[in-house]
Amino acid sequence: MDDLQELEAPRNITIKGILGLLMANISSGKDDSKQVISLGMGDPTAYSCFYTSSAAQDAVSSALTSANFNGYSPTVGLPQTRKAVAEYLSLDLPYDLQSDDVYVTAGCTQAIEIALSILARPGANILLPRPGFPIYGLCAAFRHVEARYFDLVPEKQWEVDLRAVEDLADHNTVAMVVINPGNPCGNVYTYQHLKEIAETAKRLGIIVISDEVYGHLAFGDTPFVPMGVFGSVAPVLTLGSLSKRWLVPGWRLGWLVTNDPDGTLKTPKFVERLKKYCDICGGPATFIQAAVPAIIQGTQDVFFRKAISILKQTSDICCQRIKEIRCITCPCKPQGSMAFMVKLNVSMLKDISDDIDFCFKLAKEESVIILPGIAVGLKNWLRITYAVEPTCLDEALKRLKSFCQRHSV
Amino acid sequence: MDDLQELEAPRNITIKGILGLLMANISSGKDDSKQVISLGMGDPTAYSCFYTSSAAQDAVSSALTSANFNGYSPTVGLPQTRKAVAEYLSLDLPYDLQSDDVYVTAGCTQAIEIALSILARPGANILLPRPGFPIYGLCAAFRHVEARYFDLVPEKQWEVDLRAVEDLADHNTVAMVVINPGNPCGNVYTYQHLKEIAETAKRLGIIVISDEVYGHLAFGDTPFVPMGVFGSVAPVLTLGSLSKRWLVPGWRLGWLVTNDPDGTLKTPKFVERLKKYCDICGGPATFIQAAVPAIIQGTQDVFFRKAISILKQTSDICCQRIKEIRCITCPCKPQGSMAFMVKLNVSMLKDISDDIDFCFKLAKEESVIILPGIAVGLKNWLRITYAVEPTCLDEALKRLKSFCQRHSV
Repeated sequence: MDDLQELEAPRNITIKGILGLLMANISSGKDDSKQVISLGMGDPTAYSCFYTSSAAQDAVSSALTSANFNGYSPTVGLPQTRKAVAEYLSLDLPYDLQSDDVYVTAGCTQAIEIALSILARPGANILLPRPGFPIYGLCAAFRHVEARYFDLVPEKQWEVDLRAVEDLADHNTVAMVVINPGNPCGNVYTYQHLKEIAETAKRLGIIVISDEVYGHLAFGDTPFVPMGVFGSVAPVLTLGSLSKRWLVPGWRLGWLVTNDPDGTLKTPKFVERLKKYCDICGGPATFIQAAVPAIIQGTQDVFFRKAISILKQTSDICCQRIKEIRCITCPCKPQGSMAFMVKLNVSMLKDISDDIDFCFKLAKEESVIILPGIAVGLKNWLRITYAVEPTCLDEALKRLKSFCQRHSV
Repeated sequence: MDDLQELEAPRNITIKGILGLLMANISSGKDDSKQVISLGMGDPTAYSCFYTSSAAQDAVSSALTSANFNGYSPTVGLPQTRKAVAEYLSLDLPYDLQSDDVYVTAGCTQAIEIALSILARPGANILLPRPGFPIYGLCAAFRHVEARYFDLVPEKQWEVDLRAVEDLADHNTVAMVVINPGNPCGNVYTYQHLKEIAETAKRLGIIVISDEVYGHLAFGDTPFVPMGVFGSVAPVLTLGSLSKRWLVPGWRLGWLVTNDPDGTLKTPKFVERLKKYCDICGGPATFIQAAVPAIIQGTQDVFFRKAISILKQTSDICCQRIKEIRCITCPCKPQGSMAFMVKLNVSMLKDISDDIDFCFKLAKEESVIILPGIAVGLKNWLRITYAVEPTCLDEALKRLKSFCQRHSV
């Protein structure tokens, strides 16, 4: 069993890992009179204002009780699920996706894992955004794909530094990752910027992996445009799920989609590899898959509008409260997703060494959880989630302000 | 995009791949008056005699409608789910598993994938049974782990050829896989044989991966004994799920368990690697996880007894009917799981070249699906599933007999 010593976990930090440590730090604190408020994760399902649509719940419930969907589905997904997702996504595209373009996955996490695994080959590298979503780096490490990071520029609405992308890419680069609407930045890319990304990918001969798990969760001036719109410029693998728009991250129903009207990706080898890879993945539950057509068709627009409206309200609360805090600045007003990045000026604090120290002391003293920026690649920044019930959020931000005042030089 | 040409899918045959081709072959046949009967896959959920327990369905239904489990679970699984699985499995062990021993997975398929992935390292090899379950070979190929095959001996109740295991193993061998109750052989290993396997693994310094997805589905003279009983002889990774015993393969609720009372596997490095690996997997739906304690506690023994009794009945029907067919012999009466292997004597057939030819012609002429043995590693054998409603099974076997008579020399 000595060989077990050779097994190493990649050193990457994970969001859940850090949040777990922060939570443990609260438990060991003295003041237990304060309710714990987490602005740490994009999972608002504990708040009744963020409950899923009744149409969605009813659809799953009736698929379950029908007893028609207790058996295996094809590993690429049920035909009706693939068709429903293809039609849903085609609404925003200049071409029609086919059922065969859609691979149904256990949440967007599994879609990420599949995308990176099928592109992995000896010597391959992948271009990832910084700040970004740590699962990409972790996944790349497990698949022995080298992760190379390009910056998102806060002064330019977190746009991709495309010159950096060109400098990083070489003949071993297989793909670049774009997360839009942005996690962790809360930005929404313009049509024009997405087009430039696609053109850059085309010049470099690489695939764009477009993480649209927050697709349609845009509440600012810039409308959400799926990267697949530019699928004929460069082939796009679109990753998404019901998780965020339908507020059901725990249902684990996602998709990987080839947005590729010219068929560049649809070589027999690539499709065979993708299908076989699906054979080794445990996909999502069949009865949840079976509910997807009714979930998509049955959810009223008012449900989406309500969620968007609350997110706009809570993101506004964040921006206002942050303005009152001297040591924290917000370079970009959030326009979408469920979280954004703010900059911490530690030199204005007397006894805080960095973002991690800040978050641990905040957790201990105020029972408020915020993710240190280092977890998403930016030291001395903070990621704040606003997918939180408004009065809770306001309370958490008041505590944050009071904490900052107390520790100011 | 030339690099896409470098991407190869492993060449492994998959069960679903072959069954899909067989099914397509029926559709292209002329006689569409016959109902298609599949003896191809261990998924009996289409037959009402194999419906899951109402306790199980009710538990999932109420977890769903509570709206308390729409959010993310910890990636290793909900605490209450881990605890319930630990307690359930401990009933058959000489020691108590802890919650931390249990990692909740999207079905047994994902448990297989996790087990092989966390053990993968450059140069590693793994010992797999032949015949066996093809996902292991496919998974090993994707993880660049060399698969080495040892025989199961039909004359000895499909016992592992332990001498072959010793000959195949070297210092790069990380584990051997045991599937008990057996898929595809329908055998159940004795306490004594499992002990010998553990002792062999100990001598070789390797882990035993024990696939017990058919755990407790034993209806012959040999009772089911979990490999974990010998966890202090050699460390065991036990893989299992609700799929077969609760007749819900589509719910995708499985587990990977460290059966390791001496803590050999529980090095910080191994546990950290396992936990981080879970972070990149999309696990099972949270509300299905939340239902597991009630599913385990609430399912009455009469439900299990009924399923076992039908499987015994259908396996008996198989044995009797097969005896009437000259070109097919059964070396071992099935004692568990949902399928068994029979030997095809092609020399007694005038126009059949091998098992694949046999199965394709059978599908076309009789609308009966049987898996050619080559799909599980044994050419000119057949895998017959008896998890089929008795009258359907009987009809399918009559057609099989008539097919064989028609093609006899």
